[in-house]
Amino acid sequence: MNNASFKYPDQAAYELVTAQLAAKNITYKDIAVITKELQKQYLPDVPLSEFEAETQDVLHKREVMNNVMVALELDRLATAHELKEPLESIICNDAGVFGVDEGLALNIANIYGTIGVTNYGYVDKVKEGIIKRLDEEKGDEVNTFIDDIIGAIAAAVAAKMAHKYA
Amino acid sequence: MNNASFKYPDQAAYELVTAQLAAKNITYKDIAVITKELQKQYLPDVPLSEFEAETQDVLHKREVMNNVMVALELDRLATAHELKEPLESIICNDAGVFGVDEGLALNIANIYGTIGVTNYGYVDKVKEGIIKRLDEEKGDEVNTFIDDIIGAIAAAVAAKMAHKYA
Amino acid sequence: MNNASFKYPDQAAYELVTAQLAAKNITYKDIAVITKELQKQYLPDVPLSEFEAETQDVLHKREVMNNVMVALELDRLATAHELKEPLESIICNDAGVFGVDEGLALNIANIYGTIGVTNYGYVDKVKEGIIKRLDEEKGDEVNTFIDDIIGAIAAAVAAKMAHKYA
Amino acid sequence: MNNASFKYPDQAAYELVTAQLAAKNITYKDIAVITKELQKQYLPDVPLSEFEAETQDVLHKREVMNNVMVALELDRLATAHELKEPLESIICNDAGVFGVDEGLALNIANIYGTIGVTNYGYVDKVKEGIIKRLDEEKGDEVNTFIDDIIGAIAAAVAAKMAHKYA
Repeated sequence: MNNASFKYPDQAAYELVTAQLAAKNITYKDIAVITKELQKQYLPDVPLSEFEAETQDVLHKREVMNNVMVALELDRLATAHELKEPLESIICNDAGVFGVDEGLALNIANIYGTIGVTNYGYVDKVKEGIIKRLDEEKGDEVNTFIDDIIGAIAAAVAAKMAHKYA
Repeated sequence: MNNASFKYPDQAAYELVTAQLAAKNITYKDIAVITKELQKQYLPDVPLSEFEAETQDVLHKREVMNNVMVALELDRLATAHELKEPLESIICNDAGVFGVDEGLALNIANIYGTIGVTNYGYVDKVKEGIIKRLDEEKGDEVNTFIDDIIGAIAAAVAAKMAHKYA
Repeated sequence: MNNASFKYPDQAAYELVTAQLAAKNITYKDIAVITKELQKQYLPDVPLSEFEAETQDVLHKREVMNNVMVALELDRLATAHELKEPLESIICNDAGVFGVDEGLALNIANIYGTIGVTNYGYVDKVKEGIIKRLDEEKGDEVNTFIDDIIGAIAAAVAAKMAHKYA
Repeated sequence: MNNASFKYPDQAAYELVTAQLAAKNITYKDIAVITKELQKQYLPDVPLSEFEAETQDVLHKREVMNNVMVALELDRLATAHELKEPLESIICNDAGVFGVDEGLALNIANIYGTIGVTNYGYVDKVKEGIIKRLDEEKGDEVNTFIDDIIGAIAAAVAAKMAHKYA
């Protein structure tokens, strides 16, 4: 039951998010690069530093942090074989009809309105830059959630920029 | 990366969902009772058996099963203290601004259209029947996700019935 | 096709929204009262003036204004019998399986995260205060969209307050 | 207020939807072609006739018909200059931060789960085939909603096919 006296740990949440991304060799700067690429035809003159600042802003939002933490814990737990079957196999095989990875990502994108959602849908299909690398990475690590999460954060930043310069 | 040759294990998924609900002492019949209560002013003459059949139908849908499996694994892992901090504490305290529990529930309700979503929002606030018991249950078990999941399934069934008798 | 040189008319949009609400005898203060009622068990000591300020903030957001303008134009056009059949009749009769009224409302609530969505679902069912009056109003005016719009704005403000005091 | 005795006019709704699409020189067969293109790498051997049958199925769903009817009435009313300012100008200029066109489209795509939503986001960006033509068409007609609607229906059909052959 909801514990009304519990104070949301904003700083610790941000630190876990940063650590989870670092464990996949990703920083907020990498995400900013994806967004700059996404927006290059609309905002060619906006410096990368501005995309970086907006990415950090998105990464501090609670609803974003909560979905990121859950998603990346699920990748970690699947890698460690700590999930029950058949969920373990569904996640390890990144089954096309799973949809929970896209669902958590959409919960992030939704907060930034329909521009966030359509940008995420596009990124999810074309798998730009670092997302493509993650999605294709060989090895023992499960990367089912991380690519959707990166795509959703990049889409959220793109939506913020689109509104800012509308 | 998506393994195109992986076949989605519908039967095993349904069995895990049933086992996860049973571990909380819940059956599809309990959920059907909640839906009948929700719809009593609109559909007073529809027998409980029809709500039960529709509940089983909803519980076999892949997008429903996937979100249920993930949500109830998260309750189990939080109970076993296997999640990283501060996510562990956020879930154990059912923090009001967490939102991932409602997010997974909404991914279920959404498939049944806006009637599914509004019914879920209502159930989430009023916590009828079994949901209230779960939400208030004392003890060592974390029940952060289960109440939202039950509410979303009940709302999905309500939406199906509303369309059927429109 | 998108006209990239078109500048979004923020001030004119806010004025139309205000005029549309005024035509139904509703001000932002009425909406703030609904939200205060919604949050009374959680935030009993927050003054009404703070709810009013947050309501004005929500009403200035573009995605909110856009959905409000469209929804209230549809009520006006249905009242004037300017829509094609059977859409005209579906809206005039506020058909339970229409769902576009709730859909536009959810586009507003979604921006404020899952708390916005669940609060909207609840308000939609219980129809508090002014919403109940609108929904039951006799007369020639079509009020199919306005009640959902008011509910969604009130829910959005409730979500903002919940995050602020989390 | 909801008129409980009103019976939803399924057949008349389908006829209006068909007439609205015909007014833009679009048939369900055109939409099926877009979906086949979208799915060609996954389902190269499925005949066009199967995509056509699924497109007709989607077009008969009430939540789909309701959003299509509203969207295409808005294009018609904007073309006829029957909307209040600044909504009229926002729609005529297809303002990038409007979002109601994508919002109605997402209400369609959502019913088909996350695969529907991501496919729609992709189609919305790349504007395939007939959608591109509509989006770029010169002339007096407003085509702000039609391209999103076609994209959402095509995405819905793609999601149905993806689940069918998973």
